[in-house]
Amino acid sequence: MSTTASFFVPVQDQIHRVEHLMRSQAEGHNPDLKAALDHLISSGGKRIRPTLTILTGRMLGADEDRLVTLAAAIELLHTATLVHDDLIDGSLLRRGIPTLNSRWSPGATVLTGDFLFARAAKLAADTESVPAISLFATTLGVIVNGEITQLFTSRCRANRDEYYQRIYAKTASLFETCTCCAALISPVSAETTTLVRQYGYDIGMAFQIIDDVFDFTSDQSQLGKPVGSDLRQGLITLPTLFFLENHPDDEDAQEILAGDCLHYDEQVSRLVEKIRTSEAIDLAMAEANRFVDQALEKLQQLPECPERHHLEQLTLYITRRNS
Amino acid sequence: MSTTASFFVPVQDQIHRVEHLMRSQAEGHNPDLKAALDHLISSGGKRIRPTLTILTGRMLGADEDRLVTLAAAIELLHTATLVHDDLIDGSLLRRGIPTLNSRWSPGATVLTGDFLFARAAKLAADTESVPAISLFATTLGVIVNGEITQLFTSRCRANRDEYYQRIYAKTASLFETCTCCAALISPVSAETTTLVRQYGYDIGMAFQIIDDVFDFTSDQSQLGKPVGSDLRQGLITLPTLFFLENHPDDEDAQEILAGDCLHYDEQVSRLVEKIRTSEAIDLAMAEANRFVDQALEKLQQLPECPERHHLEQLTLYITRRNS
Repeated sequence: MSTTASFFVPVQDQIHRVEHLMRSQAEGHNPDLKAALDHLISSGGKRIRPTLTILTGRMLGADEDRLVTLAAAIELLHTATLVHDDLIDGSLLRRGIPTLNSRWSPGATVLTGDFLFARAAKLAADTESVPAISLFATTLGVIVNGEITQLFTSRCRANRDEYYQRIYAKTASLFETCTCCAALISPVSAETTTLVRQYGYDIGMAFQIIDDVFDFTSDQSQLGKPVGSDLRQGLITLPTLFFLENHPDDEDAQEILAGDCLHYDEQVSRLVEKIRTSEAIDLAMAEANRFVDQALEKLQQLPECPERHHLEQLTLYITRRNS
Repeated sequence: MSTTASFFVPVQDQIHRVEHLMRSQAEGHNPDLKAALDHLISSGGKRIRPTLTILTGRMLGADEDRLVTLAAAIELLHTATLVHDDLIDGSLLRRGIPTLNSRWSPGATVLTGDFLFARAAKLAADTESVPAISLFATTLGVIVNGEITQLFTSRCRANRDEYYQRIYAKTASLFETCTCCAALISPVSAETTTLVRQYGYDIGMAFQIIDDVFDFTSDQSQLGKPVGSDLRQGLITLPTLFFLENHPDDEDAQEILAGDCLHYDEQVSRLVEKIRTSEAIDLAMAEANRFVDQALEKLQQLPECPERHHLEQLTLYITRRNS
């Protein structure tokens, strides 16, 4: 599957407007910022978050201009967090394209991320919805708090609750913000807002679990990084958690359960191979599908319309996409 | 002068509330963030920005709770920018107290700054004034754009326009935001809002010029850094600009005017000494006083009240404070 998946078609024009609005944020500012923003936007993904925002808002009767503004705010916030993440992780490539920190000094990279935060906040303010702006700011706090917790928490911790908290902070909180903010700028009831917020939560959780599965099942050329790179960095994700639960006697599993990181590349590679060929992959996918089913159930409670149909397609796409 | 200057007295309670609200932003988040925030708030300055915000808003009839929220948002934004600045500059001390980056990894420092931005944005949203939130976000963009411009601009550039643009971005834009946002949450006319915004601009410009003068005239124990540290870093401020204008034949001045940085410590020390004992200091102070006079003129146009009197005291204090 690619960005030509059917549900992307009806939002093509809006996505172009979103990208144009993102690019325009550097206008009147330093030309180096314009160059950085152009680079970041040209190398940027499938725009799943703006697509989700626009389809949700359109379904609920939001004004198109405000919706484009909101979608640009969210995607720019997402971009800003990636700029700082790549710097902190020392990543030189993202989606096969050089990161900002691979070319610029740490200082310039920090400030560019800060600038994107500032302009994302300005775009959020441009929606003129105080509840949407407030949720937007809260979510940035949740995302950053999650990253700090990950940074300060000892690696190789195997705990399902911690995993769910981490992927909520990392991914689901922003998906939830996409759908909830779209509702907050729409003429709908508090019940509908809660419903689409939960829908955003569900697909966000599914999205990250599947990303974590792909980290084991895709090959290096698809991932743009070594297979099992999470585990290699000491990050325990759902496939590993299932493997540990089902194979407590495995020698590598025992080491992790004892609270140790695996120290040798060969040992990690061996464990990655065991996990990717085990039932842990199917169990993790089943967990992702449970969130997908919950998401679809939420959609069923909304009036039928073309956008609801597109959102169903987007929800199903989450599990079938390539990484 | 110290924080016991008379105009601080009537806002003492509010400043305590501002600090309490700032500290509470880490609640429900990672305990390391709470520790960082406590450290930053305990080591934080005179609270001139919150004082300016509260006195202005009170003069204009703003609700006290919203005013405290706004003041906390502004001071937290200011704190966040300092966290990233100290990291980028590699500063180990600020006001004689260890910086966050002197103790934490670069990654943890970047994320802590990001967290403070997020919570500052949330506090701004809590004022529930879209124009205030919007100006707040715009100002963060201006500040960061100024820092990036400084980072990418070759050092040792001697240009008055650039200097004014730089100190506007660095300092006056946030002072302007203090007074303008205070007006935006008050029941006042657009004319009054413009007037107090200009007042904030004037005292912000005066504040930074005087800081730049102190960098030459204070001694190392007061500054907590070497005298003339701006010039040592290749940063040309107003005293140097006046010296260059008045002594174009000075051998050190000529080197700078030719676009070169001074390469030897002894040469910089010699030039610093020439500047600090020259008329350039008085000329720069006169320029700061011109902004102070403009600020006082703006205040004269507002109805007389105790807060206006306190703001006059605050304005005069700007030129007399120790660094």
